[in-house]
Amino acid sequence: RINGDRLWDSLMEMARIGPGVAGGNNRQTLTDADAEGRALFRDWCEAAGCTMGLDSMGNMFARREGTDPDALPVYVGSHLDTQPTGGKYDGVLGVLSGLEVVRSLNDLGIRTRHPIVVTNWTNEEGTRFAPAMLASGVFAGQHDQDWAYARKDAEGKSFGDELKRIGWVGDEEVGARRMHAFFEYHIEQGPILEAEGVEIGVVTHGQGLWWLEVTLTGKDAHTGSTPMEMRVNAGLGMARITEAVHRIAMDHQPDAVGAVGQANVYPNSRNVIPGKAVFTVDFRSPDLGKLTSMRERLEREAQEIAGELGLGITIEPTGHFDPVEFDAGCVGAVRNAAERLGYSHRDIVSGAGHDACWINRVAPTAMIFCPCVDGLSHNEAEEITPDWARKGADVLFHAVVETAGI
Amino acid sequence: RINGDRLWDSLMEMARIGPGVAGGNNRQTLTDADAEGRALFRDWCEAAGCTMGLDSMGNMFARREGTDPDALPVYVGSHLDTQPTGGKYDGVLGVLSGLEVVRSLNDLGIRTRHPIVVTNWTNEEGTRFAPAMLASGVFAGQHDQDWAYARKDAEGKSFGDELKRIGWVGDEEVGARRMHAFFEYHIEQGPILEAEGVEIGVVTHGQGLWWLEVTLTGKDAHTGSTPMEMRVNAGLGMARITEAVHRIAMDHQPDAVGAVGQANVYPNSRNVIPGKAVFTVDFRSPDLGKLTSMRERLEREAQEIAGELGLGITIEPTGHFDPVEFDAGCVGAVRNAAERLGYSHRDIVSGAGHDACWINRVAPTAMIFCPCVDGLSHNEAEEITPDWARKGADVLFHAVVETAGI
Ligand SMILES: NC(=O)NCCC(=O)O
Ligand SMILES: NC(=O)NCCC(=O)O
Repeated sequence: RINGDRLWDSLMEMARIGPGVAGGNNRQTLTDADAEGRALFRDWCEAAGCTMGLDSMGNMFARREGTDPDALPVYVGSHLDTQPTGGKYDGVLGVLSGLEVVRSLNDLGIRTRHPIVVTNWTNEEGTRFAPAMLASGVFAGQHDQDWAYARKDAEGKSFGDELKRIGWVGDEEVGARRMHAFFEYHIEQGPILEAEGVEIGVVTHGQGLWWLEVTLTGKDAHTGSTPMEMRVNAGLGMARITEAVHRIAMDHQPDAVGAVGQANVYPNSRNVIPGKAVFTVDFRSPDLGKLTSMRERLEREAQEIAGELGLGITIEPTGHFDPVEFDAGCVGAVRNAAERLGYSHRDIVSGAGHDACWINRVAPTAMIFCPCVDGLSHNEAEEITPDWARKGADVLFHAVVETAGI
Repeated sequence: RINGDRLWDSLMEMARIGPGVAGGNNRQTLTDADAEGRALFRDWCEAAGCTMGLDSMGNMFARREGTDPDALPVYVGSHLDTQPTGGKYDGVLGVLSGLEVVRSLNDLGIRTRHPIVVTNWTNEEGTRFAPAMLASGVFAGQHDQDWAYARKDAEGKSFGDELKRIGWVGDEEVGARRMHAFFEYHIEQGPILEAEGVEIGVVTHGQGLWWLEVTLTGKDAHTGSTPMEMRVNAGLGMARITEAVHRIAMDHQPDAVGAVGQANVYPNSRNVIPGKAVFTVDFRSPDLGKLTSMRERLEREAQEIAGELGLGITIEPTGHFDPVEFDAGCVGAVRNAAERLGYSHRDIVSGAGHDACWINRVAPTAMIFCPCVDGLSHNEAEEITPDWARKGADVLFHAVVETAGI
């Protein structure tokens, strides 16, 4: 078993970097706080005897050698970046539990046959630079590195420039590594495990996703002196499309979700009819047919709404992946581990996207979930118990050791 | 007649200060650009032989002496502050035409019986610090100065601090001045005059207004992993209330308008269900009954929408004035002037709020409108012709001279 207190202490220490405003974290990707978090993780890994690799997307790889020089490593990890108002565990739990696996192996004097590599994937959240899971996506050959470098944040700063600025561009070519397997341990970010009192989620599938960015162009004009029939109100268009996103997701129940996350009107003035609106749509489903149907229907309805209001419209896809089925062998290793440890468990579908969803395309992959309070995530109030954290890390430890061999 | 070329040149010179991004202006109140515009106006007034007064709200008063020491001054003017993406004429035309009246009187060697005072009212736009017409409102006894000083912009900076920072706090007590009359010349900011090919709007009434600021409180949560039925989506609430504002205004046609101008969701992240939304509502009508009915219905419907979605809601009024009827004598002076000059004219209701709407409560007041292209205002593309500008200034000149006496 791993050392639950040490894991928890490390989680709390990492959470001091990039504090939020309400007890959580704002350690967004490629900020100064991200650089500080990376440095702390590197120092911890080196103290645990690992050597640190770094690729040109800023992905970090802390390697503990195995006994077989020809064996491919077993990878474990997740991401250290957070939402602008994020929690202390989303991503971080998976990275630091990977480190805890290494520390526990050191404590126990165990040498595995396969090396073990603990990873921190860059820009998992995708808030600052869309899409999410950007660097694991490049690693898995889903995106081009040049394209990824050109992603821009809201201030127009590019991913490539910001990665350079914080000093975390490595020499290593992205995706050159081969993996024996990859395990990602994460909080559920949903309410199911807690509601059912189950300790471990054995993640068999991941939802597919479509992210769209909609821009409506109307005419900004004086709210007081422009007659209703002369308006071309982009804010009203945004409102109607926001409602359409909701209705479409409701019409695809169960197993489908959708919402508008970012919503901006211009010039954003009390007495000006908005002349422009830019907002983002997030649709998900574990069912590819539903996912496609939601996107298609939204595109049709949004065009209709824009047409009725006389608005110009562009709809740009900014993120997509199909539903994922994880590797039966790795999933089995997770289920066996939970069984062996006597922890209650159930199979579950991941509602969120994860780096594991991309890595699954290039290596046998599985995920482990632990419950989180009220299913709350992407919120500073995100919370888990030390006991939940520990049990998931135990399962990770057993699954990794079983897969890496002794 | 006034000197139309000189007026146009001054308009163009002022427009160089605080340039916008699309040919208009961003010279918002109490910014460095506002201070620069004020200094230019002061220099011009002093060069025209006026003495400058300044009150503790930053209102500027450039005085040209009259022949009768006991006669109260005739005031003319408007505002130099602009929207964030504003035009070159909204407000500025009225201030610089007041200056042009003085310059023309100087050219012609005319001394009026009543002094003439050209004013620049602080923070007419109300975008940075709500409500609009803030300083003329304090002048007219509608707001308390301490309350006005405490108004905050989006960054939390207060009106009082920013006025001090730009160095335009005067010693003079606000509202201590008595006026013989007040004339404000402004662009229509609506489409009527241009559509009808009429050169002068004789403004008989002004619409009343209600500004509301709505805050919805839900729960930010992960878009992918939070089931639809567990959401408390503040962005969806904002969308529904935005639609309600539109529907309510449509149900009060004709002579009523309404829109949501500012719209903000938090944390404004692609994969987070908004946990908070803050947005502003602007309702107007020349009919007090309609104005009240729109506000009441919105408050009722917004509460219902919030209730259905499980959202917390607060609705704060941030600006209000009743419909205005301007002074018959001053309105007559404007109509006579247009008649005498042979300019086509019609009576008109102001769609926008103006400093004149407050000053009308403490002095006989009237307004003059000139057309603007496509009725467009609060937009950098706001445009008027030099001929329109000149004709309205001629009317101002005649109305002022008739009222001030020779
Ligand atoms: N796990 C997680 O929150 N990932 C970010 C991408 C997503 O929105 O699913
Ligand atoms: N004239 C003008 O745009 N004033 C600002 C206040 C309003 O929105 O009516």
